[in-house]
Amino acid sequence: MAEIVALDLEESSTGLVATDLQDGVLTVTLSNPPAHALSMEMIATLHRTLDAARSDKAVRVLVLASSGKIFCAGHDLKEMAAHRADPDGGRAFLEDLFRRCSELMKAIVRLPKPVIARVDGIATAAGCQLVASCDLAIASEAARFCTPGVNLGGFCSTPMVALSRNVSRKHAMEMLLTGEMIDAQTARDFGLVNRVVPPEYLDQVTAKYAAAIASKSPAAIARGKRAFHEQADMRLSEAYDYASAVMVEGFMTRDSDEGIDAFVSKRKPEWKGE
Amino acid sequence: MAEIVALDLEESSTGLVATDLQDGVLTVTLSNPPAHALSMEMIATLHRTLDAARSDKAVRVLVLASSGKIFCAGHDLKEMAAHRADPDGGRAFLEDLFRRCSELMKAIVRLPKPVIARVDGIATAAGCQLVASCDLAIASEAARFCTPGVNLGGFCSTPMVALSRNVSRKHAMEMLLTGEMIDAQTARDFGLVNRVVPPEYLDQVTAKYAAAIASKSPAAIARGKRAFHEQADMRLSEAYDYASAVMVEGFMTRDSDEGIDAFVSKRKPEWKGE
Amino acid sequence: MAEIVALDLEESSTGLVATDLQDGVLTVTLSNPPAHALSMEMIATLHRTLDAARSDKAVRVLVLASSGKIFCAGHDLKEMAAHRADPDGGRAFLEDLFRRCSELMKAIVRLPKPVIARVDGIATAAGCQLVASCDLAIASEAARFCTPGVNLGGFCSTPMVALSRNVSRKHAMEMLLTGEMIDAQTARDFGLVNRVVPPEYLDQVTAKYAAAIASKSPAAIARGKRAFHEQADMRLSEAYDYASAVMVEGFMTRDSDEGIDAFVSKRKPEWKGE
Repeated sequence: MAEIVALDLEESSTGLVATDLQDGVLTVTLSNPPAHALSMEMIATLHRTLDAARSDKAVRVLVLASSGKIFCAGHDLKEMAAHRADPDGGRAFLEDLFRRCSELMKAIVRLPKPVIARVDGIATAAGCQLVASCDLAIASEAARFCTPGVNLGGFCSTPMVALSRNVSRKHAMEMLLTGEMIDAQTARDFGLVNRVVPPEYLDQVTAKYAAAIASKSPAAIARGKRAFHEQADMRLSEAYDYASAVMVEGFMTRDSDEGIDAFVSKRKPEWKGE
Repeated sequence: MAEIVALDLEESSTGLVATDLQDGVLTVTLSNPPAHALSMEMIATLHRTLDAARSDKAVRVLVLASSGKIFCAGHDLKEMAAHRADPDGGRAFLEDLFRRCSELMKAIVRLPKPVIARVDGIATAAGCQLVASCDLAIASEAARFCTPGVNLGGFCSTPMVALSRNVSRKHAMEMLLTGEMIDAQTARDFGLVNRVVPPEYLDQVTAKYAAAIASKSPAAIARGKRAFHEQADMRLSEAYDYASAVMVEGFMTRDSDEGIDAFVSKRKPEWKGE
Repeated sequence: MAEIVALDLEESSTGLVATDLQDGVLTVTLSNPPAHALSMEMIATLHRTLDAARSDKAVRVLVLASSGKIFCAGHDLKEMAAHRADPDGGRAFLEDLFRRCSELMKAIVRLPKPVIARVDGIATAAGCQLVASCDLAIASEAARFCTPGVNLGGFCSTPMVALSRNVSRKHAMEMLLTGEMIDAQTARDFGLVNRVVPPEYLDQVTAKYAAAIASKSPAAIARGKRAFHEQADMRLSEAYDYASAVMVEGFMTRDSDEGIDAFVSKRKPEWKGE
């Protein structure tokens, strides 16, 4: 049943991520066990996966998944440590790494297709940031979250950009200053994940959310997701001016006519793409 | 007992909203059943009701209410659909509609008197936005909330301006991307409403909040509500400079002297208006 | 066992605050009973305590505590009332008071060492603001929180700057407009405090958090705390550019090398200060 998508991705063959497209839902599975670390190569692979997903009309929703006890443990400390021997002590490598990683997180936010994190293991540092950067997150009861930079003489400064846009200040500070693990339930209470389910239901519940979103007009979803993030950084009055214009454009589309007509006629809509 | 207020509102007679003033609390009841839709006429009526309430010293708090299974279902889809036949496909109408509706939402935020949503039914799209725009919201267990634009080939882009200023990102995205209904309890967990009570207690609990606020100095409340929204969009240091100035002005008023004296003397204060 | 720190604080002797340093944790106890009011002198004392703590390398974490039924009741109303008799009606005094108090709150936010509020009583007005301004807050079940300015013909406009950066809009508005007390559990649900514990465990749980943070690299914590607040006011893209630079600087430090090496070697790190 599973149709393996031949994205424009030579990396599919490297095995760093596995992709699987079914009914408009592209599942992107990190495959760099055991830590599924965000090495420079993994970041590049995910970038290309997002680029391919962006332009592939068959892809309507992405599910970002992983397998094993670790969802994603963040950056590859060994790779980073190796560059300490560079003539500049690794500075150029680190600058490149964090620039590319930040671009990856922003690419998730800017992707015109919703991204759902399906988390069944430990998500730490940039792995926790990945979850925070997704539009939705469904976690199993086994999921754990942590920003442990502070345990290593550092601080999860880039993860906190995403984290602090998901959870309240006191909660973000608790995670950042203590570096302690929080369980799935606490992550839900903090607002970092939307749902917590028993591990055996994780696929099913995630699939339900993905299918629901995949059934909507892709053009409307793209417009709405972009508008969400644009208006979030605006003052109220500016946000309303902007959102009103977006709303008008939305109602002038064929998909809007189709959606309303289908609703009134109690039939399933057929999206035309705009 | 109920004293019907003769606001400067010819619309009272149109029946689109019913207003009732008791002890400083103006209850504004949407009366456009069954959906209580925010048609162009309803928006104009609410604008005029807010304008009248703003200038009427007898009004200290507004309660925005409705009756029946639907609190407010948002815009009037039939009215909008009718304008698709306009020479410009309805664009001018839609621009006007969303501009006026956004102005209405901002007018609630800017009203110098607190507005409490009393929700006992379904609040969807711009109806959900109304609730999010109010200062407080008390819901019955029967209340439901939804941003269903995405189900109709669109996206609740203007409702999300208010929604995303009430609830966290993952929660807002869940509502916006799935278009699914959330129950009153979930709305409370998300922070969209302050309290959830059994339907038979809704009036009583709302009245308790309204009476508590109506007993405060109207001038102090007006100054504070405005300052809340002003400082919310500022950086911390700017916010403190601004709020400190507001605080000094507040303490220089007669109502402040009266409030402190009444507190010290353990008597009921009599507000003088500044 | 308790080592009394001889901070550069003549105020230690005034008794307005008591300070005690143990294992890197400076406990600052408000000692102005029964209300522990933020009088002009108390504000100056706390300012000097923070200044001393900032420059004292032995201080890694601050715990802000109090004793008795009131944690801190905010400003000293008697002191303020007395200045109403000034030729300018007290305006100059109030301007000075709120400027200094706002500077105090910002000094907590800017202090390069985390501040944990340990709350076992009632925190109202600027006392509630103190708790909101701290990085973390641990409360006993006896703690209560309130922004009661509205009960005195005023409005807690400066407390709301901190409050509204801790809790969601509807929750902040509920506290500000009603002036009613919320219990510790509600404060936790709102996100104003991190943990609620039985009174007899308050010291122990607070000490556990403080000790955990005191064991981290002070330089990393300082960099991270500053970055947290800086990026919080930025748009996403700007925040990532900024945080990426902070992250690189962090990884170039000796403490980062030491932290990673200690982690890999499974030994306790010894921080070198940068």
